[in-house]
Amino acid sequence: MAFYSKRDLYFHLFENHKIEDLISYPYFSDHQRETFDLVLDAAEKIAQNSMYPLLTEMDRNEPQLENGKIKVHPGMRKIIRQFGEDGWINATFSYEEGGQQLPNTVYQASGFIFQAANYSASVYPFLTTGAANLIRIFGSKELKEKFTPNMYSGKWQGTMALTEPDAGSSLSDLQTTAYPTSHDGTFKIKGQKIYISCGDHDACENIIHLMLARIVDAPAGTKGISLFVVPKYRVADNQPNDVLTQGIYHKMGYKGAPIAHLMIGSDDGCEGYLVGEANKGLSYMFQMMNEARVGVGMNACAIGTAAYHASLSYANERPQGRKLSQKDPSLPQIPIIEHADVKRMLLFQKSVIEGSLSLLLYCAKLSDLVHVEKGDQKEDFGLLLDLLTPIAKSYPSEMCCLSTSAAVQVLGGAGYTTDFPIEQYYREARIHPIHEGTTGIHGMDLLGRKVLTQNGKALKLLLREIIESIAAAKAIPSLVSKTIMLENYLKRTQEVIDTLLPKAGKDMEAFLSDATLFLEMMGILVIGWQWLKQATIAAQKLQSEDLEKDFYQGKIMCMNYYFEYELVKIGSLSTRLLSEEKVTINMKKEWF
Amino acid sequence: MAFYSKRDLYFHLFENHKIEDLISYPYFSDHQRETFDLVLDAAEKIAQNSMYPLLTEMDRNEPQLENGKIKVHPGMRKIIRQFGEDGWINATFSYEEGGQQLPNTVYQASGFIFQAANYSASVYPFLTTGAANLIRIFGSKELKEKFTPNMYSGKWQGTMALTEPDAGSSLSDLQTTAYPTSHDGTFKIKGQKIYISCGDHDACENIIHLMLARIVDAPAGTKGISLFVVPKYRVADNQPNDVLTQGIYHKMGYKGAPIAHLMIGSDDGCEGYLVGEANKGLSYMFQMMNEARVGVGMNACAIGTAAYHASLSYANERPQGRKLSQKDPSLPQIPIIEHADVKRMLLFQKSVIEGSLSLLLYCAKLSDLVHVEKGDQKEDFGLLLDLLTPIAKSYPSEMCCLSTSAAVQVLGGAGYTTDFPIEQYYREARIHPIHEGTTGIHGMDLLGRKVLTQNGKALKLLLREIIESIAAAKAIPSLVSKTIMLENYLKRTQEVIDTLLPKAGKDMEAFLSDATLFLEMMGILVIGWQWLKQATIAAQKLQSEDLEKDFYQGKIMCMNYYFEYELVKIGSLSTRLLSEEKVTINMKKEWF
Repeated sequence: MAFYSKRDLYFHLFENHKIEDLISYPYFSDHQRETFDLVLDAAEKIAQNSMYPLLTEMDRNEPQLENGKIKVHPGMRKIIRQFGEDGWINATFSYEEGGQQLPNTVYQASGFIFQAANYSASVYPFLTTGAANLIRIFGSKELKEKFTPNMYSGKWQGTMALTEPDAGSSLSDLQTTAYPTSHDGTFKIKGQKIYISCGDHDACENIIHLMLARIVDAPAGTKGISLFVVPKYRVADNQPNDVLTQGIYHKMGYKGAPIAHLMIGSDDGCEGYLVGEANKGLSYMFQMMNEARVGVGMNACAIGTAAYHASLSYANERPQGRKLSQKDPSLPQIPIIEHADVKRMLLFQKSVIEGSLSLLLYCAKLSDLVHVEKGDQKEDFGLLLDLLTPIAKSYPSEMCCLSTSAAVQVLGGAGYTTDFPIEQYYREARIHPIHEGTTGIHGMDLLGRKVLTQNGKALKLLLREIIESIAAAKAIPSLVSKTIMLENYLKRTQEVIDTLLPKAGKDMEAFLSDATLFLEMMGILVIGWQWLKQATIAAQKLQSEDLEKDFYQGKIMCMNYYFEYELVKIGSLSTRLLSEEKVTINMKKEWF
Repeated sequence: MAFYSKRDLYFHLFENHKIEDLISYPYFSDHQRETFDLVLDAAEKIAQNSMYPLLTEMDRNEPQLENGKIKVHPGMRKIIRQFGEDGWINATFSYEEGGQQLPNTVYQASGFIFQAANYSASVYPFLTTGAANLIRIFGSKELKEKFTPNMYSGKWQGTMALTEPDAGSSLSDLQTTAYPTSHDGTFKIKGQKIYISCGDHDACENIIHLMLARIVDAPAGTKGISLFVVPKYRVADNQPNDVLTQGIYHKMGYKGAPIAHLMIGSDDGCEGYLVGEANKGLSYMFQMMNEARVGVGMNACAIGTAAYHASLSYANERPQGRKLSQKDPSLPQIPIIEHADVKRMLLFQKSVIEGSLSLLLYCAKLSDLVHVEKGDQKEDFGLLLDLLTPIAKSYPSEMCCLSTSAAVQVLGGAGYTTDFPIEQYYREARIHPIHEGTTGIHGMDLLGRKVLTQNGKALKLLLREIIESIAAAKAIPSLVSKTIMLENYLKRTQEVIDTLLPKAGKDMEAFLSDATLFLEMMGILVIGWQWLKQATIAAQKLQSEDLEKDFYQGKIMCMNYYFEYELVKIGSLSTRLLSEEKVTINMKKEWF
């Protein structure tokens, strides 16, 4: 069972985003196309042999809390260790840190394969990478030496411990408190954390929480939040560190990864280590969260991809009905992929997942460029990446709920049963618009922050890129009509921006009231741009002697689909965004 | 926990659709407003006391196949019997048939309450009603006497047995065969049926299948399909009738109702009774299916309603964040219902479910009028109902997948956990675009059949109704701008129809290729019309001395929401529908 298309992934990496460019930078200069291929082959092997076979099992045997400890699927121990041994957890880190200086783009592409095979299983090592990254960048030498080696090896699990019962979207309301101790510079931590992914389990020997807490007497709000390392077991003596697993959340999907409710320091016995400076915790966390957000977009895209391929293979095999022009019941039935409406549902999925993957790997490449570039270039890439982050998180997250739904629909009744993995994908996709910032939060981030930054500089950079892509596409006669279409919708988008921005200074409530729709509109535009880029390359290849005509024709046709069925939605969205009627602002809670 | 709004239901029944009008017809003349109230109160009591308490339990303890028999939740036996004893199963049937001549509108409204409380539990008795109805209308006196009394009492379960492994959407490919026997006019049935809801279970003493089969040597295709009554146990001696439960389907949602795979006559021992005439089975079934289709729309709407109320109550209680103008972290957090984006998600849900309920009860009233009216009036109501049926089935089905998703999103992480029933509603909503004809099938039914009937007469009747509603709304100054908006989108819709229809005769494949989008567009228009009607009444009430200002303001505001955020989508849909680019037709399966 194919859960992704290697051909398509390679198209994005090597034809669309030309990531071999990265090799020219000294940091990546030991790599070559062949090492990238080897990495991706290795990823496919783990995904195929170790992860995909557990997909259904892990869903049906969800983690359980027993005697204060969370038990997960026994197969997870082997998978995590393999990730450690093969060097995945610190693959992108420098040689000095034991890493391989792998471009983030290749790392994300590998992640995509893992996630498409088994999203729950992929969560464990990725969380460890993120947590270790925080220690690596902001922690002291002692902290690094104490914690990161066992995290890199997969022996210990890392987590991000942010959310509390009264502080979800509103992180400024964090209550967990850190008390300095006189003897050794450590802190005593007290509080509770909820929804902590992999917050406790028995597939690793220790759990290392990267935890936000407020040092006693710190300023209120976001300015008084610090970052701590809080292990479940103390490193010195392996004794419990007073981090109690109070509960486990059962959930609709991605059941294979445990989500814990933790009580911290209930017996005054929890030791934590400050990372970096006091009160800078949130800014540290946000630097990682931006990467995590692009990562969530990738998760969603990967799940959508697996669902697409499952539904595509069903559509090719399932005979049902006949062409409308040939209703004779004595004729054999045709595979449902021949029906226009089934093709529409498949094209919808393909346009969402391949459009998303294109954007996500573009963002990954930007992050590599930010890493290796200098000066203005570095700054520009950074601004562009920041602007695109809420879109790269939210478009795939929202749209893969719909694309997995289309996958269910392709199968009809069969799609609703547990005989196929598609209903699981549908359930798993639904988490992504929620975690790492809800779609609503990202709408406000985009319109209320990213668009306004440096007088709209990031936006100008994005527009420049889009206009460049349009110019390149215009050189191909068969694409001209579509370039005009994109130009028109780009104009429409700019009209919306020009109408909205003057309101920013005045009434923020009103200015941001439809930020979610603005995010949706920008997502549709940006993915349209990614499709035009893909189609441009495909059209060029088709002009040459390329033998893979089917693959490239598919790209062109899917671009057509996207423009005809998806891009047009900017029309309605902009109608709403240009309207002066403040429906949600004026609605009163008593009227519901 | 409120799972529906009685106030809103009464608004639709008595203010919006004025169903007391029905009492003037002799068939309903024994009823009065008070008896309707009593019926609805009784429905609420069962829903609240017997059904809602089992909602979660039935989801977590799904039916199991043990030793060839399906075991369901033990509470179902009591619920089904109560439905029988209280006369729900045959409530709409005539006095002569032991029924109460209850208007279908009141029966559907009661069904809405049951479905909102516990969709799975509501399925059992509703299926029995549908099956009994087929025997009642098309069966012989003997069949009626033999089967219906025990179905009405809830002792026996009724089913609709249509789908087969090779015949889902394509019913013309049914293979189950009926062989006439010489001795008593019965038939021997052989074949298999899949996805049979309540096809076997232990909460009733017998299962009565209304089964489609092909009499041996009957014409191929839909013209050779007959309808049979096939009991699980023979009535004469209570011995097994060779209907074997081969399997049970486990599924994503509505787990409380079992779905069976049945082997019929594997040992040549299955007796069936022909209903009505040979080869007319599909037309009989379709008469019932039209009602069932509106019923599916109601199911979806009811689930969406329960999710809306659960998310509304959470939004009123959950404090998180602050007004954007008051970010001071020392201020207390505000309930999330104060945030514009949360209000948007609630308004979206409200607009979908109350708009749908309005349409569904309108359809139910039409079916009552078809029943009691005569001549041209009867025909017109019938045509209008036929035209609206695919919309009444599909708009709620598709949109309540999205509205339950919005309910999940209102709760954020909590919505994804099993701590709240909302994730269950999300899973249960997803079946409705599939069963009783997929959305794609209904799109083709609307554009390829209903719109074309009698030279578009049904469409003209609908337009007349919409224009009348617009005229009534124009009398209210505050609604004038919205009436113009609806007129414009109506014009746009007509433009699409005028562009599409000339293609009907030529290339059906191309003509119907975007039928699903056409259905979507028509759904948005029709629900917009229902909202204008609701707002007109609300505005009238607000002009008077009415004390329920909050309720009516909510209606006006939700209409505003619908027009500003939903109706505008006709813009993009019509752009696509007017385009000449045949993307899905031109796409080849090799290109995926």
